[in-house]
Amino acid sequence: MAISISRRSHIEPFHAMDVLAEANRLRQQGLDVISMAVGQPSGAAPIAVREAAVRALSTGRIGYTDALGTAALRNAIAQHYADHYGVEVAPGRVIVTTGSSAAFNLAFLAMFDPGDRVAITSPGYPAYRNILAALGLEVVEIELGDAGYLTADLLEQTHRKSPLAGVLFASPANPTGAVIPSDELSRIVENARALAISVISDEIYHRLAYTAADVTALGLGDDLVVINSFSKYYCMTGWRVGWMIVPDELVRPIERLQQSLYISAPELSQIAACEAFGGTAELEAIKDTYRRNRELLLRRLPELGLRIAAPMDGAFYAYCDVSAHTNDSMEFARRMIAEAHVAATPGHDFDVANGNRFMRFSYAGSFSEMETAMDRLKRWLR
Amino acid sequence: MAISISRRSHIEPFHAMDVLAEANRLRQQGLDVISMAVGQPSGAAPIAVREAAVRALSTGRIGYTDALGTAALRNAIAQHYADHYGVEVAPGRVIVTTGSSAAFNLAFLAMFDPGDRVAITSPGYPAYRNILAALGLEVVEIELGDAGYLTADLLEQTHRKSPLAGVLFASPANPTGAVIPSDELSRIVENARALAISVISDEIYHRLAYTAADVTALGLGDDLVVINSFSKYYCMTGWRVGWMIVPDELVRPIERLQQSLYISAPELSQIAACEAFGGTAELEAIKDTYRRNRELLLRRLPELGLRIAAPMDGAFYAYCDVSAHTNDSMEFARRMIAEAHVAATPGHDFDVANGNRFMRFSYAGSFSEMETAMDRLKRWLR
Repeated sequence: MAISISRRSHIEPFHAMDVLAEANRLRQQGLDVISMAVGQPSGAAPIAVREAAVRALSTGRIGYTDALGTAALRNAIAQHYADHYGVEVAPGRVIVTTGSSAAFNLAFLAMFDPGDRVAITSPGYPAYRNILAALGLEVVEIELGDAGYLTADLLEQTHRKSPLAGVLFASPANPTGAVIPSDELSRIVENARALAISVISDEIYHRLAYTAADVTALGLGDDLVVINSFSKYYCMTGWRVGWMIVPDELVRPIERLQQSLYISAPELSQIAACEAFGGTAELEAIKDTYRRNRELLLRRLPELGLRIAAPMDGAFYAYCDVSAHTNDSMEFARRMIAEAHVAATPGHDFDVANGNRFMRFSYAGSFSEMETAMDRLKRWLR
Repeated sequence: MAISISRRSHIEPFHAMDVLAEANRLRQQGLDVISMAVGQPSGAAPIAVREAAVRALSTGRIGYTDALGTAALRNAIAQHYADHYGVEVAPGRVIVTTGSSAAFNLAFLAMFDPGDRVAITSPGYPAYRNILAALGLEVVEIELGDAGYLTADLLEQTHRKSPLAGVLFASPANPTGAVIPSDELSRIVENARALAISVISDEIYHRLAYTAADVTALGLGDDLVVINSFSKYYCMTGWRVGWMIVPDELVRPIERLQQSLYISAPELSQIAACEAFGGTAELEAIKDTYRRNRELLLRRLPELGLRIAAPMDGAFYAYCDVSAHTNDSMEFARRMIAEAHVAATPGHDFDVANGNRFMRFSYAGSFSEMETAMDRLKRWLR
């Protein structure tokens, strides 16, 4: 038989992951490649997190948990909202997921039907667009232009052209690091409420802002979905554990989907993640490294003719205009990894229309890696 | 805003997971509940698996891997096909997934478009039906009747009524334990090939057959998809790591989907799973427990008026006709957990049409748990 291949599998690749695979291949050949491609901390998870995992491994079986997550972790996450934001969240509204990746998939499946229009920003995280497309949803990309972040006006204009079922935004944002000012965030949520647009707020880069305090959309009401993860601030990418806070009426639909599509998030990661909120001292030291890296890149990237095209207010990304060097950032990225041994992500991932002029550099690595990478780029671009 | 809830989220619950959640709630209240509800080994993963995880935790960061999985694990899985089946599989065709759950989701998304007809068996694993439905595929349930397993004739008859895009079957099967005889398996694959039906063979219960040697569908050609996992024989449910072997032309479509929907399977689980194939001595000792449990249940369940309705050739399930006691196995399961403190799964999970007369008992627990459970049921049913 010829095996069938679906039309819906023809989504875009996640180019950052392709670059990661290429970097790993070159490393296996013995090349010393510095990866600034993937949004992945070079620091390890807090010691208490890893110790909890070791204890669990020594004492027994690692099994399925309740589909919604362990009671201990759901309680710890609810407590985090009280501690960090002063916002009360009932543990029953917390759903533990296999990274934020699973949270997006579950939110889209539980909230929207094929053909529904869901707005995201461009530039934005490519997996939003790719998952939405694979699930038969119409992706509406809101071009941010110079504003740098979503505004209530942009949302309303988009909705007036053709009604939206939902909107998804991140603050701090990937790939730009832009933070939505808190009054603008309030207006977005109010507008969405008035226009009956369901809101998903991606808060995965919270605790990684450099210029403003975190504001959670949950402070603006219970009638929206917040997605977060232990991957970024907590340095637990490969553990695949994240969470979502949802309105009461979405808990059971998502539980049903999670039961069959995921069974549960990895138990060992759930046990370990309970300790993550106590790791602030270690994690703030790691964030200090990002601060130094950020200062370095803010200075050195423009010197290399790589204009910083976004504010870098949060997360650990520099989104650069590379048009002084190329009109094809995909080809530029390929040559950069092969010739300069520095991996970064072509803008096409984040912006299908204009990404050919941009590249994203992740500065979640060590300071010395960042210095070496800048030196290599300087030699290569000369 | 009223949050939107999709029509497609109205899939059936996975009742076994609801029973697990109820059992966990009762345990938190201090009740001693024996769970025969979920297909989950009570044994721990092999020592070498856990030691590899501890080593990885001590030495550093747990990060994203290539979307297709680590080279080491893909090689180890390919080698397993040579060692266990004498079948050659190129590592490039191996895709590491977040449990078999992710493998099903990826296979369905990559192979089929909304409205495509995909056949599964009834009774069968409920997540097949629920994932297919959530993804907009038409679920065609082939009633097995007394045959107990899928046959080439049943497949062809179903296809003649209305053409199928795909067929998915498991051998050994959940919930029946039935094994498809090897000559019948060959005929199924030949028929599917002739009728242009894409084949997915779920081999998650391989190495858990009691009466016949394992036969992988991969021995019958490269033009089909095989799904397997470290959850069952290897006692690694909560690690969420499995795999699929796919035709070359499906590798890239699945890689694209995996990049955005999952990023990668948990790295710690991938590192640890490399050691699973070396754990045969420990794992065969655990399988010996299942053998003893199986003998016990084969004898005692019928004594309780719970007729064994399927062959129990493999896996670790007894599928019982409970119609001597009830016509409503959902209610029966609820009372059994509340009154006898034994959890088992109502047949409705596996067979929407006739499941009211059946229950599935998992015997993956310890021998003493099985003995105690049978004693409790005896007192309760008296």
